[in-house]
Amino acid sequence: MKRGRRPGDAGTREAIVAAARTRFAAHGYARSRIRDIAADAGVDPALVHYFFGTKAGLFAAAMALPFRPAEVLGPLLEEGLDGLGERLVRRLLGIWDAPESREPLVALARSVTGHDPAAATMRGFVESEIAGRIARALPAPDARLRASLVGSQVIGLVLARYVIGLAPLAKADHDELVAAVGPTLQRYLTGDLR
Amino acid sequence: MKRGRRPGDAGTREAIVAAARTRFAAHGYARSRIRDIAADAGVDPALVHYFFGTKAGLFAAAMALPFRPAEVLGPLLEEGLDGLGERLVRRLLGIWDAPESREPLVALARSVTGHDPAAATMRGFVESEIAGRIARALPAPDARLRASLVGSQVIGLVLARYVIGLAPLAKADHDELVAAVGPTLQRYLTGDLR
Repeated sequence: MKRGRRPGDAGTREAIVAAARTRFAAHGYARSRIRDIAADAGVDPALVHYFFGTKAGLFAAAMALPFRPAEVLGPLLEEGLDGLGERLVRRLLGIWDAPESREPLVALARSVTGHDPAAATMRGFVESEIAGRIARALPAPDARLRASLVGSQVIGLVLARYVIGLAPLAKADHDELVAAVGPTLQRYLTGDLR
Repeated sequence: MKRGRRPGDAGTREAIVAAARTRFAAHGYARSRIRDIAADAGVDPALVHYFFGTKAGLFAAAMALPFRPAEVLGPLLEEGLDGLGERLVRRLLGIWDAPESREPLVALARSVTGHDPAAATMRGFVESEIAGRIARALPAPDARLRASLVGSQVIGLVLARYVIGLAPLAKADHDELVAAVGPTLQRYLTGDLR
Protein backbone atom coordinates (compact mmCIF):
# COMPACT_ATOMS: atom_id res chain seq x y z
CA MET A 1 0.00 0.00 0.00
CA LYS A 2 1.17 3.45 -0.91
CA ARG A 3 -1.50 5.22 1.14
CA GLY A 4 -0.23 8.35 2.79
CA ARG A 5 1.43 9.88 -0.25
CA ARG A 6 1.58 13.66 -0.26
CA PRO A 7 1.42 16.20 -3.13
CA GLY A 8 5.18 16.58 -3.03
CA ASP A 9 5.92 12.87 -3.37
CA ALA A 10 7.79 12.08 -6.52
CA GLY A 11 5.62 10.10 -8.86
CA THR A 12 2.33 10.65 -7.03
CA ARG A 13 0.74 12.53 -9.90
CA GLU A 14 1.99 9.91 -12.35
CA ALA A 15 0.62 7.10 -10.16
CA ILE A 16 -2.82 8.71 -10.21
CA VAL A 17 -2.72 9.22 -13.98
CA ALA A 18 -1.68 5.59 -14.51
CA ALA A 19 -4.46 4.32 -12.23
CA ALA A 20 -6.96 6.54 -14.03
CA ARG A 21 -5.92 5.26 -17.46
CA THR A 22 -6.35 1.68 -16.33
CA ARG A 23 -9.71 2.24 -14.69
CA PHE A 24 -11.14 4.41 -17.48
CA ALA A 25 -10.14 1.76 -20.01
CA ALA A 26 -11.65 -1.07 -17.95
CA HIS A 27 -14.87 0.61 -16.78
CA GLY A 28 -15.51 3.51 -19.14
CA TYR A 29 -15.78 7.16 -18.25
CA ALA A 30 -19.19 7.21 -16.60
CA ARG A 31 -18.59 4.26 -14.25
CA SER A 32 -15.09 5.25 -13.10
CA ARG A 33 -15.15 7.05 -9.76
CA ILE A 34 -12.49 9.35 -8.35
CA ARG A 35 -12.53 7.44 -5.06
CA ASP A 36 -11.77 4.13 -6.82
CA ILE A 37 -8.99 5.63 -8.89
CA ALA A 38 -7.53 7.14 -5.71
CA ALA A 39 -7.68 3.74 -3.99
CA ASP A 40 -6.00 2.09 -7.00
CA ALA A 41 -3.21 4.67 -6.78
CA GLY A 42 -2.99 4.38 -2.99
CA VAL A 43 -3.78 8.04 -2.35
CA ASP A 44 -6.51 10.05 -0.69
CA PRO A 45 -9.27 11.20 -3.09
CA ALA A 46 -8.61 14.78 -1.99
CA LEU A 47 -5.20 14.52 -3.59
CA VAL A 48 -6.78 13.61 -6.92
CA HIS A 49 -8.96 16.71 -6.70
CA TYR A 50 -5.92 18.76 -5.68
CA PHE A 51 -4.03 17.76 -8.82
CA PHE A 52 -6.82 17.49 -11.39
CA GLY A 53 -9.92 19.30 -10.11
CA THR A 54 -12.74 17.21 -11.53
CA LYS A 55 -13.05 13.76 -13.06
CA ALA A 56 -13.09 15.50 -16.46
CA GLY A 57 -9.77 17.15 -15.63
CA LEU A 58 -8.28 13.82 -14.58
CA PHE A 59 -9.54 12.23 -17.79
CA ALA A 60 -8.03 15.03 -19.87
CA ALA A 61 -4.68 14.40 -18.18
CA ALA A 62 -4.93 10.60 -18.42
CA MET A 63 -5.74 10.72 -22.15
CA ALA A 64 -3.24 13.54 -22.77
CA LEU A 65 -6.04 15.61 -24.30
CA PRO A 66 -4.80 18.67 -26.14
CA PHE A 67 -7.25 20.80 -24.13
CA ARG A 68 -9.63 20.59 -21.20
CA PRO A 69 -13.12 20.77 -22.67
CA ALA A 70 -14.64 22.41 -19.60
CA GLU A 71 -12.09 25.22 -19.66
CA VAL A 72 -12.74 25.88 -23.35
CA LEU A 73 -16.47 25.27 -23.59
CA GLY A 74 -17.47 26.81 -20.27
CA PRO A 75 -16.49 30.42 -21.08
CA LEU A 76 -17.73 30.13 -24.68
CA LEU A 77 -21.14 28.89 -23.60
CA GLU A 78 -21.39 31.56 -20.92
CA GLU A 79 -21.15 34.24 -23.61
CA GLY A 80 -24.47 32.99 -24.98
CA LEU A 81 -25.63 31.25 -28.12
CA ASP A 82 -25.33 34.26 -30.44
CA GLY A 83 -22.32 33.75 -32.69
CA LEU A 84 -21.31 30.66 -30.71
CA GLY A 85 -20.62 28.66 -33.91
CA GLU A 86 -18.00 31.11 -35.12
CA ARG A 87 -16.47 31.61 -31.68
CA LEU A 88 -16.19 27.86 -31.26
CA VAL A 89 -14.37 27.35 -34.57
CA ARG A 90 -12.00 30.23 -33.87
CA ARG A 91 -11.19 29.03 -30.34
CA LEU A 92 -10.63 25.42 -31.38
CA LEU A 93 -8.40 26.37 -34.31
CA GLY A 94 -6.42 28.62 -31.98
CA ILE A 95 -5.78 25.70 -29.64
CA TRP A 96 -5.22 23.01 -32.24
CA ASP A 97 -2.94 25.00 -34.52
CA ALA A 98 -0.48 25.47 -31.66
CA PRO A 99 2.51 23.20 -32.44
CA GLU A 100 2.38 21.53 -29.03
CA SER A 101 -1.23 20.43 -29.64
CA ARG A 102 -0.58 18.61 -32.87
CA GLU A 103 0.80 15.34 -31.57
CA PRO A 104 -1.78 14.78 -28.79
CA LEU A 105 -4.59 15.78 -31.16
CA VAL A 106 -3.58 13.24 -33.79
CA ALA A 107 -3.04 10.61 -31.09
CA LEU A 108 -6.52 11.38 -29.77
CA ALA A 109 -8.09 11.02 -33.21
CA ARG A 110 -6.34 7.67 -33.62
CA SER A 111 -7.42 6.42 -30.22
CA VAL A 112 -11.04 7.37 -30.92
CA THR A 113 -11.10 5.50 -34.23
CA GLY A 114 -8.96 2.61 -32.98
CA HIS A 115 -9.77 -0.85 -31.73
CA ASP A 116 -8.65 -0.43 -28.15
CA PRO A 117 -10.83 0.26 -25.12
CA ALA A 118 -9.75 3.90 -25.30
CA ALA A 119 -12.24 4.34 -28.13
CA ALA A 120 -15.24 3.44 -25.98
CA THR A 121 -13.92 5.43 -23.04
CA MET A 122 -13.45 8.46 -25.22
CA ARG A 123 -16.97 8.10 -26.58
CA GLY A 124 -18.36 8.23 -23.05
CA PHE A 125 -16.29 11.29 -22.30
CA VAL A 126 -17.26 13.11 -25.51
CA GLU A 127 -20.92 12.34 -24.90
CA SER A 128 -20.96 13.53 -21.33
CA GLU A 129 -18.40 16.34 -21.22
CA ILE A 130 -18.50 17.82 -24.71
CA ALA A 131 -21.80 16.98 -26.42
CA GLY A 132 -23.59 16.85 -23.05
CA ARG A 133 -22.24 20.23 -22.01
CA ILE A 134 -23.32 21.81 -25.30
CA ALA A 135 -26.73 20.10 -25.18
CA ARG A 136 -27.40 21.44 -21.68
CA ALA A 137 -26.84 24.98 -22.98
CA LEU A 138 -29.48 24.59 -25.72
CA PRO A 139 -33.16 25.18 -25.09
CA ALA A 140 -34.44 22.96 -27.92
CA PRO A 141 -35.96 19.52 -27.23
CA ASP A 142 -33.61 18.11 -29.88
CA ALA A 143 -30.59 19.52 -28.04
CA ARG A 144 -28.71 16.22 -27.97
CA LEU A 145 -29.06 15.68 -31.71
CA ARG A 146 -27.90 19.25 -32.29
CA ALA A 147 -24.88 18.73 -30.04
CA SER A 148 -23.94 15.51 -31.83
CA LEU A 149 -24.23 17.27 -35.21
CA VAL A 150 -21.81 19.93 -33.93
CA GLY A 151 -19.59 17.06 -32.83
CA SER A 152 -19.67 15.48 -36.29
CA GLN A 153 -18.49 18.66 -38.02
CA VAL A 154 -15.83 19.37 -35.41
CA ILE A 155 -14.52 15.80 -35.62
CA GLY A 156 -14.51 16.05 -39.43
CA LEU A 157 -12.59 19.32 -39.26
CA VAL A 158 -9.95 17.73 -37.01
CA LEU A 159 -9.63 14.71 -39.28
CA ALA A 160 -9.53 16.70 -42.53
CA ARG A 161 -7.17 19.42 -41.31
CA TYR A 162 -4.81 17.68 -38.90
CA VAL A 163 -4.92 13.93 -39.49
CA ILE A 164 -5.60 13.42 -43.20
CA GLY A 165 -4.28 16.80 -44.27
CA LEU A 166 -6.95 17.31 -46.93
CA ALA A 167 -5.93 20.19 -49.19
CA PRO A 168 -6.75 23.06 -49.29
CA LEU A 169 -8.70 22.92 -46.02
CA ALA A 170 -5.56 21.81 -44.19
CA LYS A 171 -3.83 25.09 -45.10
CA ALA A 172 -6.80 27.47 -44.98
CA ASP A 173 -6.41 30.42 -42.59
CA HIS A 174 -8.55 30.86 -39.51
CA ASP A 175 -10.74 33.67 -40.89
CA GLU A 176 -11.59 31.57 -43.93
CA LEU A 177 -12.54 28.54 -41.83
CA VAL A 178 -14.46 30.57 -39.26
CA ALA A 179 -16.52 32.07 -42.11
CA ALA A 180 -17.05 28.67 -43.74
CA VAL A 181 -17.62 26.36 -40.77
CA GLY A 182 -18.92 28.79 -38.11
CA PRO A 183 -22.38 29.14 -39.74
CA THR A 184 -22.64 25.34 -40.00
CA LEU A 185 -22.16 24.99 -36.25
CA GLN A 186 -24.47 27.91 -35.57
CA ARG A 187 -27.24 26.31 -37.63
CA TYR A 188 -26.75 22.99 -35.82
CA LEU A 189 -26.92 24.84 -32.49
CA THR A 190 -29.84 27.19 -33.03
CA GLY A 191 -31.02 27.06 -36.65
CA ASP A 192 -33.87 25.37 -38.44
CA LEU A 193 -33.15 21.67 -38.92
CA ARG A 194 -36.75 21.04 -40.09
CA MET B 1 7.00 -15.00 -64.49
CA LYS B 2 3.28 -15.48 -64.49
CA ARG B 3 2.72 -13.56 -67.72
CA GLY B 4 0.03 -15.08 -69.86
CA ARG B 5 -2.61 -15.40 -67.13
CA ARG B 6 -6.19 -15.23 -68.38
CA PRO B 7 -9.37 -13.88 -66.75
CA GLY B 8 -10.41 -17.41 -65.82
CA ASP B 9 -7.16 -18.23 -64.02
CA ALA B 10 -7.69 -18.95 -60.38
CA GLY B 11 -6.07 -16.23 -58.30
CA THR B 12 -5.45 -13.79 -61.14
CA ARG B 13 -7.77 -11.15 -59.73
CA GLU B 14 -6.27 -11.64 -56.28
CA ALA B 15 -2.73 -11.34 -57.66
CA ILE B 16 -3.63 -8.00 -59.24
CA VAL B 17 -5.24 -6.73 -56.03
CA ALA B 18 -2.21 -7.78 -54.00
CA ALA B 19 0.17 -6.07 -56.43
CA ALA B 20 -1.99 -2.95 -56.37
CA ARG B 21 -1.99 -2.79 -52.58
CA THR B 22 1.77 -3.06 -52.47
CA ARG B 23 2.35 -0.45 -55.16
CA PHE B 24 -0.24 2.02 -53.88
CA ALA B 25 1.29 1.77 -50.41
CA ALA B 26 4.83 2.27 -51.72
CA HIS B 27 4.21 4.97 -54.33
CA GLY B 28 0.90 6.61 -53.44
CA TYR B 29 -2.19 6.81 -55.57
CA ALA B 30 -1.11 9.42 -58.11
CA ARG B 31 2.25 7.82 -58.96
CA SER B 32 1.01 4.23 -59.25
CA ARG B 33 0.33 3.24 -62.86
CA ILE B 34 -1.89 0.41 -64.08
CA ARG B 35 0.90 -0.82 -66.35
CA ASP B 36 3.32 -1.16 -63.43
CA ILE B 37 0.79 -2.94 -61.25
CA ALA B 38 0.06 -5.30 -64.13
CA ALA B 39 3.78 -5.98 -64.52
CA ASP B 40 4.11 -6.63 -60.79
CA ALA B 41 1.27 -9.14 -61.01
CA GLY B 42 2.62 -10.70 -64.19
CA VAL B 43 -0.48 -9.92 -66.27
CA ASP B 44 -1.36 -7.81 -69.27
CA PRO B 45 -2.64 -4.30 -68.39
CA ALA B 46 -5.78 -5.07 -70.40
CA LEU B 47 -6.65 -7.69 -67.84
CA VAL B 48 -6.50 -5.11 -65.06
CA HIS B 49 -8.93 -2.93 -67.01
CA TYR B 50 -11.11 -5.98 -67.69
CA PHE B 51 -11.45 -6.71 -63.97
CA PHE B 52 -11.45 -3.22 -62.46
CA GLY B 53 -12.20 -0.65 -65.16
CA THR B 54 -10.14 2.32 -64.08
CA LYS B 55 -7.33 2.91 -61.61
CA ALA B 56 -9.96 4.26 -59.21
CA GLY B 57 -11.87 0.99 -59.49
CA LEU B 58 -8.71 -1.01 -58.81
CA PHE B 59 -7.96 1.18 -55.82
CA ALA B 60 -11.48 0.70 -54.47
CA ALA B 61 -11.00 -3.07 -54.72
CA ALA B 62 -7.49 -3.01 -53.26
CA MET B 63 -8.58 -0.94 -50.26
CA ALA B 64 -11.86 -2.85 -49.90
CA LEU B 65 -13.74 0.44 -50.17
CA PRO B 66 -17.38 0.15 -49.23
CA PHE B 67 -18.32 1.88 -52.50
CA ARG B 68 -16.79 3.05 -55.75
CA PRO B 69 -16.75 6.83 -55.59
CA ALA B 70 -17.07 7.27 -59.35
CA GLU B 71 -20.19 5.12 -59.49
CA VAL B 72 -21.80 7.05 -56.66
CA LEU B 73 -20.61 10.58 -57.38
CA GLY B 74 -20.85 10.44 -61.16
CA PRO B 75 -24.64 10.06 -61.41
CA LEU B 76 -25.26 12.47 -58.51
CA LEU B 77 -23.13 15.19 -60.08
CA GLU B 78 -24.76 14.66 -63.46
CA GLU B 79 -28.12 15.58 -61.95
CA GLY B 80 -26.78 19.07 -61.32
CA LEU B 81 -25.89 21.14 -58.28
CA ASP B 82 -29.47 21.88 -57.20
CA GLY B 83 -30.24 19.84 -54.11
CA LEU B 84 -26.93 17.98 -54.45
CA GLY B 85 -26.19 18.32 -50.72
CA GLU B 86 -29.31 16.46 -49.69
CA ARG B 87 -29.02 13.85 -52.44
CA LEU B 88 -25.42 13.20 -51.42
CA VAL B 89 -26.31 12.62 -47.76
CA ARG B 90 -29.22 10.35 -48.65
CA ARG B 91 -27.18 8.29 -51.10
CA LEU B 92 -24.22 7.87 -48.76
CA LEU B 93 -26.41 6.87 -45.81
CA GLY B 94 -28.17 4.36 -48.05
CA ILE B 95 -24.85 2.74 -48.90
CA TRP B 96 -23.24 2.95 -45.48
CA ASP B 97 -26.20 1.75 -43.47
CA ALA B 98 -26.22 -1.52 -45.40
CA PRO B 99 -24.88 -4.18 -43.00
CA GLU B 100 -22.25 -5.38 -45.48
CA SER B 101 -20.75 -1.87 -45.67
CA ARG B 102 -20.16 -1.47 -41.98
CA GLU B 103 -16.95 -3.42 -41.56
CA PRO B 104 -15.11 -2.04 -44.61
CA LEU B 105 -16.26 1.48 -43.73
CA VAL B 106 -14.87 1.29 -40.19
CA ALA B 107 -11.69 -0.33 -41.52
CA LEU B 108 -11.38 2.50 -44.01
CA ALA B 109 -11.79 5.15 -41.32
CA ARG B 110 -9.09 3.43 -39.27
CA SER B 111 -6.70 3.15 -42.17
CA VAL B 112 -7.14 6.83 -43.01
CA THR B 113 -6.37 7.93 -39.45
CA GLY B 114 -3.68 5.33 -38.88
CA HIS B 115 0.09 5.41 -39.05
CA ASP B 116 0.60 3.10 -41.98
CA PRO B 117 1.27 4.13 -45.58
CA ALA B 118 -2.40 3.43 -46.35
CA ALA B 119 -3.21 6.77 -44.76
CA ALA B 120 -1.16 8.76 -47.24
CA THR B 121 -2.36 6.64 -50.15
CA MET B 122 -5.95 7.17 -49.13
CA ARG B 123 -5.39 10.92 -48.89
CA GLY B 124 -4.17 10.99 -52.49
CA PHE B 125 -7.19 8.99 -53.59
CA VAL B 126 -9.69 11.14 -51.68
CA GLU B 127 -8.11 14.31 -53.07
CA SER B 128 -8.13 13.18 -56.66
CA GLU B 129 -11.18 10.94 -56.96
CA ILE B 130 -13.62 12.34 -54.41
CA ALA B 131 -12.77 15.97 -53.60
CA GLY B 132 -11.29 16.44 -57.08
CA ARG B 133 -14.37 15.06 -58.79
CA ILE B 134 -16.65 17.34 -56.75
CA ALA B 135 -14.38 20.34 -57.30
CA ARG B 136 -14.46 19.86 -61.07
CA ALA B 137 -18.26 20.03 -61.00
CA LEU B 138 -18.23 23.43 -59.26
CA PRO B 139 -17.90 26.69 -61.16
CA ALA B 140 -16.45 28.72 -58.26
CA PRO B 141 -12.76 29.67 -58.13
CA ASP B 142 -12.69 28.29 -54.57
CA ALA B 143 -14.01 24.92 -55.77
CA ARG B 144 -11.25 22.92 -54.09
CA LEU B 145 -11.82 24.53 -50.70
CA ARG B 146 -15.55 23.88 -51.08
CA ALA B 147 -14.94 20.24 -51.95
CA SER B 148 -12.65 19.76 -48.95
CA LEU B 149 -15.28 21.34 -46.66
CA VAL B 150 -17.81 18.83 -47.99
CA GLY B 151 -15.22 16.16 -47.28
CA SER B 152 -14.78 17.35 -43.69
CA GLN B 153 -18.50 17.07 -42.89
CA VAL B 154 -18.85 13.71 -44.65
CA ILE B 155 -15.82 12.32 -42.80
CA GLY B 156 -17.22 13.65 -39.53
CA LEU B 157 -20.57 12.03 -40.24
CA VAL B 158 -18.90 8.66 -40.86
CA LEU B 159 -16.82 8.95 -37.69
CA ALA B 160 -19.69 10.12 -35.47
CA ARG B 161 -22.29 7.68 -36.79
CA TYR B 162 -20.35 4.52 -37.58
CA VAL B 163 -17.01 4.58 -35.80
CA ILE B 164 -17.55 6.47 -32.54
CA GLY B 165 -21.29 5.84 -32.37
CA LEU B 166 -22.08 9.30 -31.01
CA ALA B 167 -25.65 9.35 -29.72
CA PRO B 168 -28.21 10.34 -30.89
CA LEU B 169 -26.73 11.02 -34.33
CA ALA B 170 -25.71 7.36 -34.59
CA LYS B 171 -29.36 6.28 -34.43
CA ALA B 172 -31.02 9.19 -36.27
CA ASP B 173 -33.09 8.20 -39.30
CA HIS B 174 -32.17 9.16 -42.83
CA ASP B 175 -34.81 11.89 -43.27
CA GLU B 176 -33.63 13.60 -40.10
CA LEU B 177 -29.98 13.52 -41.19
CA VAL B 178 -30.73 14.58 -44.76
CA ALA B 179 -32.62 17.59 -43.39
CA ALA B 180 -29.85 18.43 -40.91
CA VAL B 181 -26.68 17.77 -42.92
CA GLY B 182 -27.90 18.22 -46.52
CA PRO B 183 -28.08 22.04 -46.26
CA THR B 184 -24.57 22.10 -44.78
CA LEU B 185 -23.16 20.32 -47.82
CA GLN B 186 -25.27 22.45 -50.17
CA ARG B 187 -23.88 25.64 -48.63
CA TYR B 188 -20.32 24.32 -48.91
CA LEU B 189 -21.00 23.43 -52.56
CA THR B 190 -22.82 26.50 -53.83
CA GLY B 191 -23.59 28.87 -50.93
CA ASP B 192 -22.03 32.05 -49.64
CA LEU B 193 -18.85 31.28 -47.70
CA ARG B 194 -17.98 35.01 -47.55
